[in-house]
Amino acid sequence: MTRTADRLASSVHLSADLRHVAILDQSQLPNREITLELDTLDAMVRALQELQVRGAPAIGIFAAYCIYVLARANQHLPFPDFRARVESSAATLSAARPTAVNLAWACRRMCAVLRRADDERLTPPAATDALLHEAYAIHDEDIAMCERIAELGLSLLTPGSGILTHCNAGALATSKYGTALGPVLLGAERGIPFHVFVDETRPLLQGARLTAWELSRAGVSLSLICDNMAATVMAQGKVQAVLVGADRIAANGDFANKIGTLGVAVLAKHFGVPAYVLAPSSTVDFSCESGADIPVEQRRPDEIRRLWYAEPQAPANVPCYNPAFDVTPHELVTAIVTDRAIIRPPFAEGLQQALRG
Amino acid sequence: MTRTADRLASSVHLSADLRHVAILDQSQLPNREITLELDTLDAMVRALQELQVRGAPAIGIFAAYCIYVLARANQHLPFPDFRARVESSAATLSAARPTAVNLAWACRRMCAVLRRADDERLTPPAATDALLHEAYAIHDEDIAMCERIAELGLSLLTPGSGILTHCNAGALATSKYGTALGPVLLGAERGIPFHVFVDETRPLLQGARLTAWELSRAGVSLSLICDNMAATVMAQGKVQAVLVGADRIAANGDFANKIGTLGVAVLAKHFGVPAYVLAPSSTVDFSCESGADIPVEQRRPDEIRRLWYAEPQAPANVPCYNPAFDVTPHELVTAIVTDRAIIRPPFAEGLQQALRG
Repeated sequence: MTRTADRLASSVHLSADLRHVAILDQSQLPNREITLELDTLDAMVRALQELQVRGAPAIGIFAAYCIYVLARANQHLPFPDFRARVESSAATLSAARPTAVNLAWACRRMCAVLRRADDERLTPPAATDALLHEAYAIHDEDIAMCERIAELGLSLLTPGSGILTHCNAGALATSKYGTALGPVLLGAERGIPFHVFVDETRPLLQGARLTAWELSRAGVSLSLICDNMAATVMAQGKVQAVLVGADRIAANGDFANKIGTLGVAVLAKHFGVPAYVLAPSSTVDFSCESGADIPVEQRRPDEIRRLWYAEPQAPANVPCYNPAFDVTPHELVTAIVTDRAIIRPPFAEGLQQALRG
Repeated sequence: MTRTADRLASSVHLSADLRHVAILDQSQLPNREITLELDTLDAMVRALQELQVRGAPAIGIFAAYCIYVLARANQHLPFPDFRARVESSAATLSAARPTAVNLAWACRRMCAVLRRADDERLTPPAATDALLHEAYAIHDEDIAMCERIAELGLSLLTPGSGILTHCNAGALATSKYGTALGPVLLGAERGIPFHVFVDETRPLLQGARLTAWELSRAGVSLSLICDNMAATVMAQGKVQAVLVGADRIAANGDFANKIGTLGVAVLAKHFGVPAYVLAPSSTVDFSCESGADIPVEQRRPDEIRRLWYAEPQAPANVPCYNPAFDVTPHELVTAIVTDRAIIRPPFAEGLQQALRG
């Protein structure tokens, strides 16, 4: 596929008229395949908060295209007003979800282009063009990154293995192949079989709704399980590797990912199953020394008490604790697979060398 | 409370006319409190299979009352026909759910009374009376058992502790206090505070629907969590003890309990939290040498794909693996609390001494 075709095949892309960000509404899967075309900041923030678009890399690409679309709509303004409007939108987008590092990272990249355009005294339309190129670059880098992670990850797996994954870090969450699912999806293209145990991933059911949908479409053999069944399939010797993504990786290798990842990593350690974290280099945040520095988003109790249900399945107003992510210490990680290298312990040194060296 | 009052307060009891088994339909909680009065074998089997009645001890009491009610309805028959009818009903009830040992155990006790009545040449009405006494005895023993487990369990806990529990092993599952929840509910009566983290317990949500309902009613402080959040609350140091029930305990201390228990036990070990199994002596099955001998019921995929939901939340027909129970090896258990004693490792010897010695 060409890069353009790869871009258009992504769950997030720019509409043909360049005036809208098009997303496959992930909150409606697996029952409805609806594409949304967004052109207002409100709708974009809502898309982030209601997980119509989700997955760390996809969120970064989304934010970049959003900033471009909003810039384009304001390119008739004088430069200072244009810049202020775009920077304010970028700040709002950047704050829409606190944990995923890619969101803030993409916003910063776009704002840097804007500042450079200002320094170079470009017109707003010329600055808008520069923003488009930067957004495409972010997207294309993500496609290339997915390809490299998938290759490196696949090199770690024995064909025919049982794989356990949590949440969704496939093509929907990124632009191609995905991160955690990359080796499996690339394997499927090449006729290398795996059997994937898919954690349903409460409370938002990304595993049941998205990963199971993606893997089924790709013809990958799978079993959907409840999160609390991961221990049993590992105890039965059915799992040879755990593959998970990451929303943010600290300098020491601790990482934040969807709630439940920590439990899976503890189980993998206990049952002697290697646990691989697959994520783009941009996920590594050297400003976080350890997992303790990663902020974790708390979400509303009704996601546990009644979301998805025909009627509530917990007493009204019963207190809930609902963190969106958890932090897994690096001691539980066998290797971190980035687009640049496979990094093994000690991670502090390995991450420095591979990504900054 | 008197024994009679305790019996009537149970989620399973005999109706005032002695012709029906009355159960609080647990499949309707927490939204509707419906009492069912059952008098046919079909309805009784359905109640077991659809989890209208559930919890190992409650199932035993239920089966005993069912056998009595069915015997009473057939007491006009000649003894051989009466006995054949009752034994056949007992066999059907006993087979309705394979994992819970209390079900078969209660059926065997009732059938032994029937055989004795035959040996003693009692009339069917007199045999029916003997069955009523046996059913009451099973129920009363359960009430006394709950009281002792709650006392012994409470002695292991520090007031103010955080407790994590999985599934439902409270009063609904038994007759009073319950097993795993016993120490907490007895503590609440005595003004000893605990904070309970309640695993929602997918796919049947016994934690969210039943445990949260019971604890709220008893005024116990709680946080409902998704099963995959147990690791996080343990990592945060919020949990000082794990309390779980058991559906069957093997001679070596391995035990079967609701799916997800194995994962919780592995996490407890990893985070240095003591894991206590609380169950009546009748749960110990010396005919099972180890957990490998415990049969585990597989349930239908739609419990994962669409039960409770307004619409399915997984692709249609996606394969699921849905075991109802898992088996936890005794190495992960800190102590087994029965109505007779607190048993610590080595469990094979301890269980023998406490329960057979």
